[in-house]
Amino acid sequence: MSKYWNERIQKLEPYVPGEQPKDKRYVKLNTNENPYPPSPKVLQAIRDAANDQLRLYPDPNTDDLRETLAEATGLTSDHIFVGNGSDEVLAFSFMSFFSSDRPVMFADITYSFYKVYANLCSLETNVIPLDDEFKIPVDAFCEPNGGIIIPNPNAPTGQAISIDSIRKILDANAESVVIIDEAYVNFGAESVVPLIKDYPNLLVVQTLSKYSSLAGIRVGFALGNPELIDGLNRLKNSINSYTIDRMALAGAKAAIEDDLYYKQMADKIITTRQNTINSLLDLGFKVIPSQSNFIFITHPSIQAETLFHDLKNKGILVRYFNQPRISNYLRVTIGTDDEMNQFLKVLKGIINIE
Amino acid sequence: MSKYWNERIQKLEPYVPGEQPKDKRYVKLNTNENPYPPSPKVLQAIRDAANDQLRLYPDPNTDDLRETLAEATGLTSDHIFVGNGSDEVLAFSFMSFFSSDRPVMFADITYSFYKVYANLCSLETNVIPLDDEFKIPVDAFCEPNGGIIIPNPNAPTGQAISIDSIRKILDANAESVVIIDEAYVNFGAESVVPLIKDYPNLLVVQTLSKYSSLAGIRVGFALGNPELIDGLNRLKNSINSYTIDRMALAGAKAAIEDDLYYKQMADKIITTRQNTINSLLDLGFKVIPSQSNFIFITHPSIQAETLFHDLKNKGILVRYFNQPRISNYLRVTIGTDDEMNQFLKVLKGIINIE
Repeated sequence: MSKYWNERIQKLEPYVPGEQPKDKRYVKLNTNENPYPPSPKVLQAIRDAANDQLRLYPDPNTDDLRETLAEATGLTSDHIFVGNGSDEVLAFSFMSFFSSDRPVMFADITYSFYKVYANLCSLETNVIPLDDEFKIPVDAFCEPNGGIIIPNPNAPTGQAISIDSIRKILDANAESVVIIDEAYVNFGAESVVPLIKDYPNLLVVQTLSKYSSLAGIRVGFALGNPELIDGLNRLKNSINSYTIDRMALAGAKAAIEDDLYYKQMADKIITTRQNTINSLLDLGFKVIPSQSNFIFITHPSIQAETLFHDLKNKGILVRYFNQPRISNYLRVTIGTDDEMNQFLKVLKGIINIE
Repeated sequence: MSKYWNERIQKLEPYVPGEQPKDKRYVKLNTNENPYPPSPKVLQAIRDAANDQLRLYPDPNTDDLRETLAEATGLTSDHIFVGNGSDEVLAFSFMSFFSSDRPVMFADITYSFYKVYANLCSLETNVIPLDDEFKIPVDAFCEPNGGIIIPNPNAPTGQAISIDSIRKILDANAESVVIIDEAYVNFGAESVVPLIKDYPNLLVVQTLSKYSSLAGIRVGFALGNPELIDGLNRLKNSINSYTIDRMALAGAKAAIEDDLYYKQMADKIITTRQNTINSLLDLGFKVIPSQSNFIFITHPSIQAETLFHDLKNKGILVRYFNQPRISNYLRVTIGTDDEMNQFLKVLKGIINIE
């Protein structure tokens, strides 16, 4: 605490990202990165952008990238906002649309940054418990609120929600903005982008960090009706005119254009996910159904926290959340076949000893 | 206006950056970019960073870059915060340190983003008029306030303020944070970084956009005592853990390490500035003394707005601010010798006709 911090900063409870340890080399299955490299065309586009033009500001409106996204999504570019990673897009959305008059709704088990944003914006929250199967209770999200955010699939469970359920929530909330966070949508869930034309209150947030193997370039975007996009631009242009650098703009455009490459990588990840799940079931684990590039698992006799530490000691990094209801679960990113075989081999060794 | 915008967004008055027209090729002297390319070592470092590691998140704490900056500034790395351009650093500083209990102070003629930030944070302001020579009235900045921000040199005037004046302001304001925005400090003014050890309330903000020819990679930083840096980190980690991408981190580090290259470019700009000023004085212009990479000029008989439009029609883009007290001035970025000769040639043609 410092006497120079104003009230806003004093009351913040910042997010703590998954650890990025530097002490040794790990099989890193803790921050849901894609195990496959970015498309070679993306790397070439970034190298090509490393030229004398870097002396000039980038396009503050990201017109070229938005045109490419428009083509890929079937929307027009005034439906698209580009941000410095989807976390920035989400923070800006909370700051722009969620109202302090009524509580903002999200699940008790979900991306833990949402409560950080609510706190940042001094918003009241109505935290909705998932059911015993970790499913979204749709009716609860139809009560009066000042905004809703739901990831599809959810994190850290990996479980998807159906389009019909989201449609029901949208119908019940015409007066508030409903954000669907589709960070992991390309690993088996269904996008609600086609609903944008019917629902002016729907904002879909996506990212290049997972499916596009580009966590390192920091590009995310929001898709929604132009009124919502205008609101995000008003906020962005009151903070920083130029949020996306020239290399990231070039790389992001190339990634959107090379979807064929990424679809193949996603297919590999989905196959590896199923193989990993089968092996875990053989080892006695319970596995929550996953449509994402990670799985959420629990063992009937060995505590998740014990497994987490034993795995880490043996060079395998997964994510453990010391939180109510999920403190006996581990979230495990799907890596390459080779990485998952290493993970399973170490895991078997631990289970045999315990 | 949209019913989905909350109160915060409705009342915003976003910043409007200098135009980046795409209709034709201009001699672009309107957004204070460096006319010389980035160091070749920077471009190589960025190309080298375009590798498979882009699938992984960047270091959220920017440790490596902060170590490099620490070495360059003589501070330790806990005195350094890195942001997505100095505009983001400034916005975060307003959000973290400036208090709504007492008005925030800045000059009437200064970087116009400051009043946007004040509005974003719902802060009262006490706008201090510069004197008739566009100089900072030091005594006025010693009255009670909730925070102070002063660019050195000032923009759009280009005029520097002495270290003694800043010291006097710091001494009078031990209870509030004083931000010195040194975006243009390397073109002839004196940095107050050496004062940081004596003043826990001093935050110095710098950028790679001007001196380092890297407006396109979006890196700025704040230098100050660790309590202030902690405050900025709390806010950043409540919005976006990873604000600087891997390419920008690599390029920024290489830029800091190749200061010799940039010093030579700055020397060229300073020489060109003096030659340009001499030519403008011959043409009858009044030129405000400049320690930056731009000049602020007015002509005794031809209106600035007329000159602005005539220059633009003839392919020369400069900045015109339609604001009280400065509506008869133009801000002209110092380009290469060749660009300034084109500017002067076109200007002579206009003056002879008018």
